[in-house]
Amino acid sequence: MENLAIIDLGSNSIRFVALRIADNHSYSLQYQEKESIRLGQGLNQTGILSEEGMHRALTCLNVYKHIMEVMKIDICVAVATAAVRNAANGSEFLERINAETGITMKIITGEREAYLGYLGVINTIALKDCLIFDLGGASIELTLVRDGESVHSVSIPIGAVTLTEKFNMQGNIDAIVLQDCLRYVKKKLSDIKWLREIDVPIVGIGGTARNFAKMDQRAESYEFSKIHNYIISLHSFNTLYTQITTRTSANRKKIAGLSSERADLIVAGAAVIRTIFDISGSLSMTVSGCGLREGLFFEYYAKYMHMDKPRFDDILDFSINNFIGTLGTTINCTHYDQVTRITGMLFDQLKVLHGYGGRERLLLMTAARLHDVGKIINFYDHARHSAFMIGHAPLYGLTHREQMIAGFIAGFHHGISRKTLRAYRYASMATAGDWDMIRKLSTLLALAEASDLTYEQIVKDIHITLAENVVVLVLTTIPGATYNAADYEMKQIVKQFKKEFGAALILVWK
Amino acid sequence: MENLAIIDLGSNSIRFVALRIADNHSYSLQYQEKESIRLGQGLNQTGILSEEGMHRALTCLNVYKHIMEVMKIDICVAVATAAVRNAANGSEFLERINAETGITMKIITGEREAYLGYLGVINTIALKDCLIFDLGGASIELTLVRDGESVHSVSIPIGAVTLTEKFNMQGNIDAIVLQDCLRYVKKKLSDIKWLREIDVPIVGIGGTARNFAKMDQRAESYEFSKIHNYIISLHSFNTLYTQITTRTSANRKKIAGLSSERADLIVAGAAVIRTIFDISGSLSMTVSGCGLREGLFFEYYAKYMHMDKPRFDDILDFSINNFIGTLGTTINCTHYDQVTRITGMLFDQLKVLHGYGGRERLLLMTAARLHDVGKIINFYDHARHSAFMIGHAPLYGLTHREQMIAGFIAGFHHGISRKTLRAYRYASMATAGDWDMIRKLSTLLALAEASDLTYEQIVKDIHITLAENVVVLVLTTIPGATYNAADYEMKQIVKQFKKEFGAALILVWK
Repeated sequence: MENLAIIDLGSNSIRFVALRIADNHSYSLQYQEKESIRLGQGLNQTGILSEEGMHRALTCLNVYKHIMEVMKIDICVAVATAAVRNAANGSEFLERINAETGITMKIITGEREAYLGYLGVINTIALKDCLIFDLGGASIELTLVRDGESVHSVSIPIGAVTLTEKFNMQGNIDAIVLQDCLRYVKKKLSDIKWLREIDVPIVGIGGTARNFAKMDQRAESYEFSKIHNYIISLHSFNTLYTQITTRTSANRKKIAGLSSERADLIVAGAAVIRTIFDISGSLSMTVSGCGLREGLFFEYYAKYMHMDKPRFDDILDFSINNFIGTLGTTINCTHYDQVTRITGMLFDQLKVLHGYGGRERLLLMTAARLHDVGKIINFYDHARHSAFMIGHAPLYGLTHREQMIAGFIAGFHHGISRKTLRAYRYASMATAGDWDMIRKLSTLLALAEASDLTYEQIVKDIHITLAENVVVLVLTTIPGATYNAADYEMKQIVKQFKKEFGAALILVWK
Repeated sequence: MENLAIIDLGSNSIRFVALRIADNHSYSLQYQEKESIRLGQGLNQTGILSEEGMHRALTCLNVYKHIMEVMKIDICVAVATAAVRNAANGSEFLERINAETGITMKIITGEREAYLGYLGVINTIALKDCLIFDLGGASIELTLVRDGESVHSVSIPIGAVTLTEKFNMQGNIDAIVLQDCLRYVKKKLSDIKWLREIDVPIVGIGGTARNFAKMDQRAESYEFSKIHNYIISLHSFNTLYTQITTRTSANRKKIAGLSSERADLIVAGAAVIRTIFDISGSLSMTVSGCGLREGLFFEYYAKYMHMDKPRFDDILDFSINNFIGTLGTTINCTHYDQVTRITGMLFDQLKVLHGYGGRERLLLMTAARLHDVGKIINFYDHARHSAFMIGHAPLYGLTHREQMIAGFIAGFHHGISRKTLRAYRYASMATAGDWDMIRKLSTLLALAEASDLTYEQIVKDIHITLAENVVVLVLTTIPGATYNAADYEMKQIVKQFKKEFGAALILVWK
């Protein structure tokens, strides 16, 4: 086991996270704190960190030091970004931090900041080609990702705080000032040659991007509460952008979801994102809750695990395994594996009947791999608890809707009941077509689950023959297996199968 | 660690459960299976178990035997009840079971059956005075509980199956036949002297009682899905009773929630419960999902734990601790304990202000003790996940509504947000008054949580002084404590405190 702390000292806020890598190598977030300390305040004018800002940072760091002692942190990775990097007294401040708190903090370069943000995104969002931007208080990092690799990156010292100060964008916003700001940002970005004609989706990291997600979720009455991997359409962004830049300061503060401490900074932030939308030609922005800190973690984790690179080839697969790992030893892995294997075979061999593709298969496999996790909450009704857990677990690589759907499929692994349907929150996240798919796919999962009713993994192989309106499912068992119970249980699903697939299901045991 | 299997061979069904007692002594249900084998079929006429019935039982037991091997069961407790007890070939059948499956099954007496049902109920339902009945296929056990003790019990060989056969109550029900059956049951029960003038609430165990819960939940569009501890009013019972006894067989089957395999048996079962309602003068029936099998488990567990009796003095306390135990080592106990302690002090010292009593305190304490469990699902939004988990965990001693409320309180442990409110399922289970209480009590929990922000347990004691519209909260810390962070975090709750309690909150640190 190893307890790791990560501290990220930015120009607007300081953040602290503690993670644990368990003996089984699964990792989990243990603690998170954030303070708005505005260390970078006044830096534009003076070129140095103010005594007040440094004091606020030190107060925080002293608290974090205590927490680290309490939490028995083995390793602390602490980094400082643009504010400290750009301040004349930056290095001196880090020495003071070390003297007063014992924390060794390092300044990271803009390029490294961009790279770490990229690592945070690439390991948690399923986009192989995109433009990542990390908009902080005093800088923005841009990374162009092609085929999963960071091919270009840059850090520019324009951020939400610095722009706000430079253009004096507090309170009510003058249209001319806004134009000046936009022109300035555009000029800075148009200097970067590799940013031209990229035509890729954009991914936003940082407080401004996250706050846009919150505002959009409020505007859309979005039922789900997750920010990471939330997608804002260009259209929705435009609507928010207009509100933010044309309202009076007092009215701007009324925008639902706008964080009060960001009510001023949001204008400059909006101008930057506006410009990035224009440059990239993207029709939507994916918001990433993971960035620098997660990048630092993944870098550390990759070394810890002797991986050849700090990237997972299959982030969904990794995050499912990791989640199972965090749940401890209560998981009956052989049963999970068997149900997953049989479910996959049923899906593949019935393809003619359902016509679903790889994406649906992925959702079904996710459901199968986690179908029983709800037992941790309560054995009774555990299928429904599994649905909740899958819907809310830290899984990566699925959209919010897909993750919910995977949960719903698992929720029906003992068959579909009206009561179950009624009891689902977020049911509106799935469309009628989705529900049709959920019912069909969960029928396959229910059959696989029934086939391993006795936890003995008696089914070795299956073979399906399709005739008109009849599906003959031949199940080959391991030698000496008693299959009466599984047969009985599977037959309970036959009626549902008929209803969902319009075909009679005949079971043959060999 | 110990894996325990319990098998219960009744006249209508056979049931199998597997439980695990972990090294930390927490126990959890691992597996459950049930088959309707109707072993008692024809017993009334022939006096012996039929070859078909025995064959069905043996098939099941062979499967269970396999499962026990797979699950590495250390101990198997197998009992047979009325059907085997009353059959001339009962003992012989148990020998055959032993020879064919290796399972050693024992016949238990009616009195012991009553006692075990009592143990199942008394450890999972918070009633100290009640009449428990366990209505099976071939017998009914009645236990009078006074001050938590079983003071009288009896087993009578009338059950849902035997009565149905005796009065030929299949298909459409003739009013005269029903009257005959009622008169017969009444006669049998009125022979029992201690049943007279008892005037206590009734608790029903067994398939008939459970099915009444299901029907009533459907009739009431009850959002929650738990059967155990569900309460049916006499009025609701009467409505269902009328439907069951006056409808044609075909129409009876249409009653929502009525199990298809019980569509005939339910009539005789209803007649028995009708009679028990009349005798007891009870205005409601609490349905227990726990009975004989749980009783056997608690008996075993008490011996395993060297308890002086197979009863927990405080079932809520025990079940909370047990639930925490099943969640493994991920729980930060010192933090949980500190938050619980501070929450309790806040509640007690602010009593003048809120006016709540012992019951509300219990709900708040439950919330505090489990406030962080949701981290198991996801650190992000964990307060809401805690709410879900608390609402669905195997906790005993609270009503369904109370358990949900405890969850809601925990859901607000980082403060109340509209978004959080929106995201709650089952919100309709709490009344407007409940929500007022939830907001108030969660404010106290949020303050306690904020006071231990740094996990250091810096707050040793608190002392509250109430003046007009002002609450002065003096916090005494451990020597050398840094309380800035906790102070800052607690101040975030001051506004909410003012809103909920109508008083300004002033924090003083010592």
